[in-house]
Amino acid sequence: MTSDPFRPAAAVRPGDRVAIIAPASCFDRPSFEAGLKVLAGRYRPAFSEGIFSRHRYLAGEDSRRLEELLGALADPDTRAVFCARGGYGATRLLLQLTQLSPPGAGKLLIGFSDITALHLWLQAHGRVSIHGPVLTQLGRLGTPTHERLFGLLESAAVPAALHGTASYVGGRAEGRLIGGNLSMLSRVIGTPFMPVLRDCILLLEDQGERPYRIDRMWTHLALAGVFAQVRGIALGSFTNCEEKDAPYSSADLLRELAAATGLPCAAGFPVGHGEQNEPVPLGVRVRLDADACRLEFLEPAVGG
Amino acid sequence: MTSDPFRPAAAVRPGDRVAIIAPASCFDRPSFEAGLKVLAGRYRPAFSEGIFSRHRYLAGEDSRRLEELLGALADPDTRAVFCARGGYGATRLLLQLTQLSPPGAGKLLIGFSDITALHLWLQAHGRVSIHGPVLTQLGRLGTPTHERLFGLLESAAVPAALHGTASYVGGRAEGRLIGGNLSMLSRVIGTPFMPVLRDCILLLEDQGERPYRIDRMWTHLALAGVFAQVRGIALGSFTNCEEKDAPYSSADLLRELAAATGLPCAAGFPVGHGEQNEPVPLGVRVRLDADACRLEFLEPAVGG
Repeated sequence: MTSDPFRPAAAVRPGDRVAIIAPASCFDRPSFEAGLKVLAGRYRPAFSEGIFSRHRYLAGEDSRRLEELLGALADPDTRAVFCARGGYGATRLLLQLTQLSPPGAGKLLIGFSDITALHLWLQAHGRVSIHGPVLTQLGRLGTPTHERLFGLLESAAVPAALHGTASYVGGRAEGRLIGGNLSMLSRVIGTPFMPVLRDCILLLEDQGERPYRIDRMWTHLALAGVFAQVRGIALGSFTNCEEKDAPYSSADLLRELAAATGLPCAAGFPVGHGEQNEPVPLGVRVRLDADACRLEFLEPAVGG
Repeated sequence: MTSDPFRPAAAVRPGDRVAIIAPASCFDRPSFEAGLKVLAGRYRPAFSEGIFSRHRYLAGEDSRRLEELLGALADPDTRAVFCARGGYGATRLLLQLTQLSPPGAGKLLIGFSDITALHLWLQAHGRVSIHGPVLTQLGRLGTPTHERLFGLLESAAVPAALHGTASYVGGRAEGRLIGGNLSMLSRVIGTPFMPVLRDCILLLEDQGERPYRIDRMWTHLALAGVFAQVRGIALGSFTNCEEKDAPYSSADLLRELAAATGLPCAAGFPVGHGEQNEPVPLGVRVRLDADACRLEFLEPAVGG
């Protein structure tokens, strides 16, 4: 898709009105209320009653979720858009978004996991967005994570670097940070939403995928030429990805898969479905030092 | 990839030497022995001791499995190639097969599930192949299925039609039969192994995939334009694809997904991971009558 230059978003201020939407799966109410409390401590969150709809595993029909998404992005009084939960369902919306430019230029969308599908849509149109906690997760995360999220939304200073726990392939690389959930990225291969990955740093995380499935998704990326394009790989958490009673771990597998790419790769960044989910801007330039397991941000998410 | 005309294979005769290979997952020995007995009642099966290798979930390292596959196809004394098991691993071999034409023109390969990856490689080179039982499954299947398989390999008569159990979208269509395992087909989207699907009848089956995953894979096919190309859809078994305690079934979902394509679609063909797994030739012309739930074969797998 397009490789428009990426534009930073407009800064959000404390007290600003922000929207909450549910473009993917339905969710439980107590987690929603807990996250709402965190958000209401800083901004004026708004949502429609329709957000509590259920249709199978979805937060209501596609038409409801699509309308809610586009309405929140377009609303001039809303300064940022928070997703209630991932799960599954954003991919279905892509079917309607193929020909559609996102409204609300300069407005950040926040989420991860299945929400990666929406980040990919925004990135296809040169929009920076935030890979970070969904609302139903905010209540379980600590104040430092909340502070980092508010900082990303409000400050034109570059975010603090993140540190991983293991160097899989040494080396350094610089590029735009693109990616998120491995399952979701692999599900846009060969579609109009596959991002331009040339010279990028690829961020990947996942949960609940057995090792052979991680192998299969990674191999799909390889067959599609992804590792011939990107410059480096930053791995977040791969939670609940172990095979019962197996003599190998998903980390063993990922280390082997990373080695085959020959690209600088560090693992264990506190991003994804683990106990920590530090927000990071997607679409901004970063520097990966895979020897020091360090991911440094060279640009902020919002303009000065 | 190429849309070479498809060529029928050479007929196998009783007593011919056939090869058994394990290009994907490792397998259990008793099932292997049971299948071997069925095969040895008709042909002279041959395999190497390396077939019993194990590396994680794989039947040995990629290099071993690749050498075994290419050796069996190239061997002039071998008249057909049976796969021991699917599971996972054939996709990894595709990384080495991108630039490689299959040797042994006119020789049939038999398997399904993960073996779909190899069928896709063969189809990319205009080769007919057999979507049918793996060796470790043969001992559990009845004599009629064995007879149908032997007939496909030996006879230039067209195979008997198959009957499904439910009409999802009425209508009739004719075209080349392509596809197999939904997971595997979705894993070649955007790679050199994606088949030319224009005017084809799409065969799909799967097992062990939760409804939201079936939804996600189907949506991936839709986003890649598959349903704008094919003329009809024949669904095999979707076994172990139910969500625990859910008020909806995978059949409900598939019916809805099929309806959205508007293509003639019948379900419940005895093909896949269910109790029945009737062998069918891929790459031959078929006629789908989605009102009568009937799949008629217009060409044989082997020449006269």
